[in-house]
Amino acid sequence: MSKRFSFAVQASDGLARTGTISTPRGEIRTPAFMPVGTAATVKAMLPESVHATGADILLGNTYHLMLRPGADRIERLGGLHEFMNWDRPILTDSGGFQVMSLAGLRKLTEEGVTFSSHVDGSKHMLSPETSMEIQRKLGSDIVMCFDECPALPADEQAVATSMRMSMRWAQRSRDAFGDRPGHALFGIMQGGVTRELRQESAEALRAIGFDGYAIGGLAVGEGQQAMFGVLDYATGYLPQDKPRYLMGVGKPDDIVGAVVRGVDMMDCVLPSRSGRTGQAWTRRGQVNIKNARHADDPRPLDAECGCPACTGYSRAYLHHVFRSSEMISGMLLTWHNLHYFQELMAGLRGAIANQQLGEFVESFHAQRAAGDIEPL
Amino acid sequence: MSKRFSFAVQASDGLARTGTISTPRGEIRTPAFMPVGTAATVKAMLPESVHATGADILLGNTYHLMLRPGADRIERLGGLHEFMNWDRPILTDSGGFQVMSLAGLRKLTEEGVTFSSHVDGSKHMLSPETSMEIQRKLGSDIVMCFDECPALPADEQAVATSMRMSMRWAQRSRDAFGDRPGHALFGIMQGGVTRELRQESAEALRAIGFDGYAIGGLAVGEGQQAMFGVLDYATGYLPQDKPRYLMGVGKPDDIVGAVVRGVDMMDCVLPSRSGRTGQAWTRRGQVNIKNARHADDPRPLDAECGCPACTGYSRAYLHHVFRSSEMISGMLLTWHNLHYFQELMAGLRGAIANQQLGEFVESFHAQRAAGDIEPL
Repeated sequence: MSKRFSFAVQASDGLARTGTISTPRGEIRTPAFMPVGTAATVKAMLPESVHATGADILLGNTYHLMLRPGADRIERLGGLHEFMNWDRPILTDSGGFQVMSLAGLRKLTEEGVTFSSHVDGSKHMLSPETSMEIQRKLGSDIVMCFDECPALPADEQAVATSMRMSMRWAQRSRDAFGDRPGHALFGIMQGGVTRELRQESAEALRAIGFDGYAIGGLAVGEGQQAMFGVLDYATGYLPQDKPRYLMGVGKPDDIVGAVVRGVDMMDCVLPSRSGRTGQAWTRRGQVNIKNARHADDPRPLDAECGCPACTGYSRAYLHHVFRSSEMISGMLLTWHNLHYFQELMAGLRGAIANQQLGEFVESFHAQRAAGDIEPL
Repeated sequence: MSKRFSFAVQASDGLARTGTISTPRGEIRTPAFMPVGTAATVKAMLPESVHATGADILLGNTYHLMLRPGADRIERLGGLHEFMNWDRPILTDSGGFQVMSLAGLRKLTEEGVTFSSHVDGSKHMLSPETSMEIQRKLGSDIVMCFDECPALPADEQAVATSMRMSMRWAQRSRDAFGDRPGHALFGIMQGGVTRELRQESAEALRAIGFDGYAIGGLAVGEGQQAMFGVLDYATGYLPQDKPRYLMGVGKPDDIVGAVVRGVDMMDCVLPSRSGRTGQAWTRRGQVNIKNARHADDPRPLDAECGCPACTGYSRAYLHHVFRSSEMISGMLLTWHNLHYFQELMAGLRGAIANQQLGEFVESFHAQRAAGDIEPL
């Protein structure tokens, strides 16, 4: 296994690429979807089940973990991998995104952000330096720069001001991260939906130099069209030989559109959150299992799916346990959703490798357009 | 695999026996502990995980299943085994115990019990005949007679009157059950804590003739001493060549005491319910994982335990996820508890087979007396 962090593109089709990120904790096949394990658990899943879905890496949230159980405690307990029983790569966010959304509970200055814990009200400070320190204590394999991510829509001048501070914070993050062989630091491009600002941000990050480049600020409510509009040019501003990570995205069709535009990594709570609220994602679109039409349906959620929910249970059962508020409902639907998302990524990787991405994308949209399963 | 229901005792030590119940769906090693899958799921567990703990059989609740999703629906969907993805033996209770506890919401006559659903308020009727019909629709392997189970303490005359009606209901259950090769019907002894009533009940049941005999009415608040007091004589009133099932029991020391007194089968929600409320059962006693003393403890719940919770996680992690209300908390602790209960049963079976039950019981109590793990 590699002792260093590296990225190799194996094939490309148009702007899309497929490759491998190598880390001392294992390889990450790209394009990669990263399940989110906010509080040191991918909700409703055991880590071996997360791996069984095909995930090579998962994401931890610095904000949640620093507050509970605390970064010092996790460090004493051997780091986040040991703590949560996941020995493969982990990417941690910087805490910036969560802390910025604590409207009214936080104070932002050039130095960083002071805020009150949602758990116990205690006062905390996050800055580029403290975020790097916390992510080091967690033992994260891929560390994210501390940045500010303004909610969109926003005034262009405000977006520019925010982006420029994030770029100063990116330099401070780089300086604070130092030299940690085997661990990677990713910069985060900001700039809203303004091409010139995105370009300025990318150039600032490239001047500093990172192991990978994230595209931030595109999962904050601006919609798919605006997101694709930015991606159409944004990936081109980033180095060819480094991974590109689109943060907080997304729905299956967002993922497909992002990969087509040259994105290598994504993360989203969607598959697990949907699983706990009775929403299943399938190749034929979304299924709301709480709908009464499933109550007597002996068919699986998706007859072509090989996950435990689809191979072992009827829609009628999934409907029953959801209606009965049984934990197995969230367990099975989360597993299914994560399995589907990973299967989608595997399909994208295979299509790119075979120069058949166009056909794959066409088939993806055709299956969804055909709609959910026929009525009984 | 056997096409008929049968029971063979392989060894005994004192009053305790170990043997095998054979059914068309598989063998049940006795003494057996049956996890409870009330609403077609052992809460927080996938069925393959329930089997991995060592369970040969699980219990379903007629009352809950008849109300949601409904017995007709389960029958249409292929029966309870197919519905819940468990192809091994299932025992169903008669619904009597749950329906009797609906104080104020039910009306009891010689015919049966009318009651209102806790799910939607709809009116329902349970009688020996309807209970047999519902359990047949569910496809249960071991069917329980419909009986009345009065809460203790109760007036002896009231207990006698209730027991005698339950014996008339036992005859009606037997008649309604008919001849169903491969499926078993168990009678249920009642009579409270009065020896003469227990004897009268046993004789009534033996005169009717059943595939197995349950001891009812001992998990309703009378305490361990009274329960053991009844078991001291009650098992002796039952046939040697049929399984004896103590209903709704219990804590690990209840189980050990019952096995010593000749009980072959038990069931209880305790390990799964405890698991969801942060209570772990170990060979060294009970551990309350929400206690702050576990917050920094890198040691497993029980270093000698081979379950996923003990081999993969620290007490600190289990404490963190319980405090954070994460589903993995209930998943891991339930698994641990069921694993421990099944390991206890395996230990009891081995000790009986080797004529070492006395030593086993002594060691069981000594380990518990030593108390939970040392402070760090």
